[in-house]
Amino acid sequence: MIDHMMPRRGFIEVGGLAAASLAAPATLAASFAQAGDARTEGRPLPEGVKLPSSPPRRRRADSIGFAIVGLGGYALNQMMPRIDQAERAHVAALVSGNPDKLRQVGDAYGVPEDARYSYEDFARIAADDRVDAVYIVLPTGLHAEWTIRAFAAGKHVLCEKPMAISSVECERMIAAARRADRKLMIAYRSHFEPYNLEAMKLMRQKAVGDIRLVRTEQSYRMGPTSPSQNWRVNRALAGGGPLEDYGLYGLQSALYLTGEMPESISATTFRPTGDPRFAEIFAHVSAQLQFPSGAVAQLVTSYDSAGGNIALVRGTGGSLIMDPATSYAGQKMRIEGPNGAEFNPGDPTVQFARQLDHLASAIREGTPIRTPGEMGLRDLRLIEAIYASAKAGRTEKVAPDGRLRR
Amino acid sequence: MIDHMMPRRGFIEVGGLAAASLAAPATLAASFAQAGDARTEGRPLPEGVKLPSSPPRRRRADSIGFAIVGLGGYALNQMMPRIDQAERAHVAALVSGNPDKLRQVGDAYGVPEDARYSYEDFARIAADDRVDAVYIVLPTGLHAEWTIRAFAAGKHVLCEKPMAISSVECERMIAAARRADRKLMIAYRSHFEPYNLEAMKLMRQKAVGDIRLVRTEQSYRMGPTSPSQNWRVNRALAGGGPLEDYGLYGLQSALYLTGEMPESISATTFRPTGDPRFAEIFAHVSAQLQFPSGAVAQLVTSYDSAGGNIALVRGTGGSLIMDPATSYAGQKMRIEGPNGAEFNPGDPTVQFARQLDHLASAIREGTPIRTPGEMGLRDLRLIEAIYASAKAGRTEKVAPDGRLRR
Repeated sequence: MIDHMMPRRGFIEVGGLAAASLAAPATLAASFAQAGDARTEGRPLPEGVKLPSSPPRRRRADSIGFAIVGLGGYALNQMMPRIDQAERAHVAALVSGNPDKLRQVGDAYGVPEDARYSYEDFARIAADDRVDAVYIVLPTGLHAEWTIRAFAAGKHVLCEKPMAISSVECERMIAAARRADRKLMIAYRSHFEPYNLEAMKLMRQKAVGDIRLVRTEQSYRMGPTSPSQNWRVNRALAGGGPLEDYGLYGLQSALYLTGEMPESISATTFRPTGDPRFAEIFAHVSAQLQFPSGAVAQLVTSYDSAGGNIALVRGTGGSLIMDPATSYAGQKMRIEGPNGAEFNPGDPTVQFARQLDHLASAIREGTPIRTPGEMGLRDLRLIEAIYASAKAGRTEKVAPDGRLRR
Repeated sequence: MIDHMMPRRGFIEVGGLAAASLAAPATLAASFAQAGDARTEGRPLPEGVKLPSSPPRRRRADSIGFAIVGLGGYALNQMMPRIDQAERAHVAALVSGNPDKLRQVGDAYGVPEDARYSYEDFARIAADDRVDAVYIVLPTGLHAEWTIRAFAAGKHVLCEKPMAISSVECERMIAAARRADRKLMIAYRSHFEPYNLEAMKLMRQKAVGDIRLVRTEQSYRMGPTSPSQNWRVNRALAGGGPLEDYGLYGLQSALYLTGEMPESISATTFRPTGDPRFAEIFAHVSAQLQFPSGAVAQLVTSYDSAGGNIALVRGTGGSLIMDPATSYAGQKMRIEGPNGAEFNPGDPTVQFARQLDHLASAIREGTPIRTPGEMGLRDLRLIEAIYASAKAGRTEKVAPDGRLRR
């Protein structure tokens, strides 16, 4: 399977778990330990996981210590192996429901034994001065709870995308950050990835003239699974489906390539009947966004269709083609037209470490955060507008902050 | 310029002409003769026009004689040079407002002098037994009038697409055909072109599984012009703009590839201000169509954007990629996925002649017409639904016959 066909997967087993776990972290951790899927966080390390063979290089004195909360496939396979590229961030602690995994990963990354936390233990992290920030890499439905717990422990937070299940949760998270006077950043890695950064710059420079159309596709066909086996198809943990997970990259691209917020949205959703993968979530989401400039974005995302990870811009003076557009690695980008060129602006895999460094600077120097909680909130509002449009079968007007206008 | 960047162009000069010409064909013909654009029908033959060096091969006794009405770029450069591929159709007469062009083209195609008509002369064609059918290759705004004149002369009609400026005109044309008891066919050449026919068959055979997404693009950037120079940007002659002309290929593709009619449509239009090209028409049209199966089509067409002539289908079992999709020649088509293959089903240029043969069979044997006036009417209704959605900024419901449901 190619890179963009492998989003983070599998985490916990029990469909109705999320709601229960919000009330009782002990139950959550116990369920992690019972998890039956080989790719879940609660199970031993799956084969093929990359663990570093030597401890990370010596760190700067002002390096920010991150506690990684959730040792699922994305953390272990994508993000953690690349953290060593960070200039001033390092793994200071681990939080997992699986003691064996804590030991193996802790040993591999040189995390001291007393910085390996279970979920029941998490509150103790408040007193751990080695931990400056918490990186939430849990299923979406658990982001709000654990972000707020991290703020309660006095830590800064880097939270995986999507920020949460709903805009209401996002607002709670932002309020918690404010109360705690701590930083909140959303891990929108494409904002730190050389190809996408170059694309933003090229679009600002009008390398394809005035933008008239953005088309994105984030689609793949998911193998057999069900809400009790895979959190990504579990509504309480994942939200509506591929839009929050994979399609969010396309939505984000449309916004940062045009540099605009949509003023209206029309969307459709679809799920085949009788398919356990789509018992709780949509299989397909399509949306058309109209921007004030006249540009239009057409987005599509699917867990049940051929496709890819593609962003295409058509302008009055040429085209930008990114394929794959927002993958973990292997980005390709070209412009067709008078400014035609292939671009190779750098190693995409720095995206993982650069967002840690970015938050480190915000913590140390107070520099502004490029992908703050407000951006995560804005995107959840747009996602909600997309679902509202699809449900009502009508075009929805959207305010500049992403709220529905009715 | 490549083939699909060269739709038919330039025809008559005067912006307000269409309305006047409907009342006074003499004025129309006079205006053709005065036309100032080098690419117009009323001017001498432009350089580079292909005229046959020898008269066409001998024809079958039952060959249908066509009068070609309108000797513009499409007729002269694309359609007429390929008519010789027809089995049982031939050019029997010409109708043009330019005597020099009538002479040159008539000589080249072996059309007798007494079968060369001016617009003022047209009524005389009723008595010309060499002419069985009339092929209307005029600007869209003149289709209804000259189709109805042809029926009044007792002839069958092949009418270029789009069928007319409005669904009301289409209904008048269909009624005229019924009254005259003559055949009416719309020149939707892709229904007679081997790649698109093969694509329809592959989609019916589920070569990419269940269709979830169709994406089409028919876009190019038009050079400087104005409504008085180029009928394609003149609202009275062209309708709303690129949708009727170029984008109609994408709309048609979405219907014949899915085999469905949409149940709802949301669309946006855009035109830059202060641009003489878009003083009367839209520059861009984007539409999202939802089908009963759950499939979605996203269409875009533009006269002012990079792009191409592309149809893309994503299904549960693979992708169909047609690029260029509906050009005069040079089609390319492949499937990606388990049934992956390149296709080369035949010479696309037979599309021009095969539609003449198709109408010939309908006339001689009474076989059903694949692209009847009712299809043209259906498409005009969908075009009107697209504009209605864009104008109202809302999603429109559509009935199976293409009418708005409100």
